Amino acid sequence: MAASFARLIKTQVRSYSAPADKAIPASKQRYIPTTGTYPQGFLVSGTHVGVKASNTRFPDLALIASETPCSAAAVFTTNKFQAAPVQVSRETLRSRMGEGIRAVVINAGCANAVTGKGGMEDAVSMGRKVDECSGVEGDSSLVMSTGVIGQRLPISKILDGIPTAHANLASTHEAWLTTARAICTTDTFPKLISRTFTLPSAPERTYRLAGMTKGAGMIHPNMATLLGVLCTDAAVSPAALQSLLKHAVSRSFNSISIDGDTSTNDTVAVLANGAAGGETVQAPASSSAQPSADYSALQKVLTSFAQDLSQLVVRDGEGATKFVTVRVRNSSDYDSARAIASTIARSPLVKTALYGRDANWGRILCAVGYSQGVRDGVVVPERTSVSFRPVDGSPPLRLLVGGEPEMVDEERASAILQNEDLEIEIDLGGGEKGADGCGGEDAVYWFCDFSHEYVTINGDYRT
Amino acid sequence: MAASFARLIKTQVRSYSAPADKAIPASKQRYIPTTGTYPQGFLVSGTHVGVKASNTRFPDLALIASETPCSAAAVFTTNKFQAAPVQVSRETLRSRMGEGIRAVVINAGCANAVTGKGGMEDAVSMGRKVDECSGVEGDSSLVMSTGVIGQRLPISKILDGIPTAHANLASTHEAWLTTARAICTTDTFPKLISRTFTLPSAPERTYRLAGMTKGAGMIHPNMATLLGVLCTDAAVSPAALQSLLKHAVSRSFNSISIDGDTSTNDTVAVLANGAAGGETVQAPASSSAQPSADYSALQKVLTSFAQDLSQLVVRDGEGATKFVTVRVRNSSDYDSARAIASTIARSPLVKTALYGRDANWGRILCAVGYSQGVRDGVVVPERTSVSFRPVDGSPPLRLLVGGEPEMVDEERASAILQNEDLEIEIDLGGGEKGADGCGGEDAVYWFCDFSHEYVTINGDYRT
Repeated sequence: MAASFARLIKTQVRSYSAPADKAIPASKQRYIPTTGTYPQGFLVSGTHVGVKASNTRFPDLALIASETPCSAAAVFTTNKFQAAPVQVSRETLRSRMGEGIRAVVINAGCANAVTGKGGMEDAVSMGRKVDECSGVEGDSSLVMSTGVIGQRLPISKILDGIPTAHANLASTHEAWLTTARAICTTDTFPKLISRTFTLPSAPERTYRLAGMTKGAGMIHPNMATLLGVLCTDAAVSPAALQSLLKHAVSRSFNSISIDGDTSTNDTVAVLANGAAGGETVQAPASSSAQPSADYSALQKVLTSFAQDLSQLVVRDGEGATKFVTVRVRNSSDYDSARAIASTIARSPLVKTALYGRDANWGRILCAVGYSQGVRDGVVVPERTSVSFRPVDGSPPLRLLVGGEPEMVDEERASAILQNEDLEIEIDLGGGEKGADGCGGEDAVYWFCDFSHEYVTINGDYRT
Repeated sequence: MAASFARLIKTQVRSYSAPADKAIPASKQRYIPTTGTYPQGFLVSGTHVGVKASNTRFPDLALIASETPCSAAAVFTTNKFQAAPVQVSRETLRSRMGEGIRAVVINAGCANAVTGKGGMEDAVSMGRKVDECSGVEGDSSLVMSTGVIGQRLPISKILDGIPTAHANLASTHEAWLTTARAICTTDTFPKLISRTFTLPSAPERTYRLAGMTKGAGMIHPNMATLLGVLCTDAAVSPAALQSLLKHAVSRSFNSISIDGDTSTNDTVAVLANGAAGGETVQAPASSSAQPSADYSALQKVLTSFAQDLSQLVVRDGEGATKFVTVRVRNSSDYDSARAIASTIARSPLVKTALYGRDANWGRILCAVGYSQGVRDGVVVPERTSVSFRPVDGSPPLRLLVGGEPEMVDEERASAILQNEDLEIEIDLGGGEKGADGCGGEDAVYWFCDFSHEYVTINGDYRT
């Protein structure tokens, strides 16, 4: 009994690989905003509760609250092992039909995943404690957790900390930054962006959109990773919000790859409280109906915003030294293009070559060739081209043109690969033909390289 | 013009990452047989032709010939970019309907992939030169190439070397070992095995089976990798040989993973010359027909042999420090079990954790949960169990039982993970229920870990 207990203790003191002092590397400072414009009616806080015993001072409980009820939508991990907060938040959204959501509460340090019935109760109690502090009835809070899998939450610490988190709520830039920091685990920097936008129905009215995310790989020892929360003061119907979020996430958070692993906790939620006034953005009546001008405009804004936010996750990829955009052009369908982009982004051989700054078009081509889920006839060797596009706007470096290898200027290739940023372009030369003989669907993925540091971080030398 | 030429030269002198002296590491010596029993009527040779200019003395042209015509079958890469020898060998088998094949000729050092029409002509000419030396008419040789992608073969060197290769043909163990070595590229040791077997129709008759393979990852800078050749002196019809090979490869060469990348040249071929006499093994008349006793027996022999051979590729995985078997049990269907095993075998997080000797069941579970191509209802968290099975036969270390995390004995976990060999068992707890409440389809995959050395090898520091 004593031995078992000792083992349990040992299991629970596993520590993160991230530096204990949470010092932000100099190279990442530029991704941290020094100011922001945040949506009206939203209040946020980041509070230290010490979910992990080793964390004695850093905020690890984030609360994002709206002064008025919000429309809300979320997309959740498709992993079959769904963490308790994922199950609880999905049920809250379902039973409320995406209306009347008031808050999102998030803890870092423990994922509350694979924790059975007790874990479900913990997740429910976190949300209810927030509701109680806000003085609202019914389940109106979404819950997220990120951290180690297979351990129960220190729930009393969290429940005891929620009143403080509520008392700390504020709308300043500093509060938003502290909140973004409170959801971090092995991230090396907080990921927060904000912007303003207008909608065609009221060009003079300014809306605000802010979002935070975390996730740097699915790390030590059993971490469950990616979370994102977006808030806007535009008025959006729940149905519109769900379809807008789904579209945006497919082209942002679901188009990035650190290591290809998908965690049990991945969740991105969006809240819209309408505090900026104006008409409510509605979803098209059917999938074939023409969307309203406001809907289309908001789709562009939200997708671009989610892309910028999700790219910060790639910037903070474990051990990453490169930020790579892969663009697959001129496919006859979007899904095939996306499958190819995803396969390249996940290939260990492509990722190690980029780390080694080697212009390995053969590995890229191989990945194109073995991509699964690509429609017949989309990949035709004789019309496939591969190029590197430098970030400085200089002409692309062609590696393969129409299936024929180019004589590569190795010095230029090497110079291009010295940069942190790189774009790889695969032109499938297909789709509906335009004046230039090409035309069709494009897909984009963002990913990072595989480095020695990735292996060190994830190899987790505990000895 | 001079500058372009200089670049071309520079491109072509890319060298392998493997040690130039081809010294075999001490830890791999035990996988090299010191003797063997080889099928009657087969003659082999490994000859130096210098496909790569930097190779001044090691054999790089392998010839495997039968004194009499063989039934033959092959499985080829599904990559959309198919190397010239793949296209040529497939056509040879098709036009001959798998009969009358006399030889396999293989060069290492250049993959003859993405080489256009000229590359096709080179592949055809290699086969015809062998036919000419053997004094046979019609295209009766299969051709394979492995090495760098996107470069033309030094075809005259190869054609000039084929008569020497033919003159060198022999049936000794040394000849087989030299031949196995001639197909290596970045492999650290030659991969050759042989065995004898009997068939139910003639229990007193001894048949022989030998095979060689190569491949250690899809390496530097643009390598096209896995090749395998199996030879037997049993008599087998082409149709039987094709279905037997397909079954065996699906459970062997297609159930291993180094890095999840699939090359343009992957080919496994089998030749059966019937030199040992006996009845010809025939395929079942239809897919629903009962196979003959000989067919079933040969299926077992060939599958087990291919598994042993393919495992040598995992043993030689780039930078590998672990040999891991993952067994997915009690699935309601084989394909789902296989998809899960494959996903675990490819997860960078699982592979780095194993390298770091960390009992990361959370990462394994995550990979189970995000596996694609798994039938609905196969993965049920509440009935999923995960164990480590030590190779010393001691009891399994249970990590997760029926969806509930076990209290892990970390010291024992650490001790188990010190071994080079490890078996991970995922029990899905499903399938047709037997007396023990379980029963169903199992799938097995073999893979290696991701180490710092993998990154070093594939990062390809050319500077």
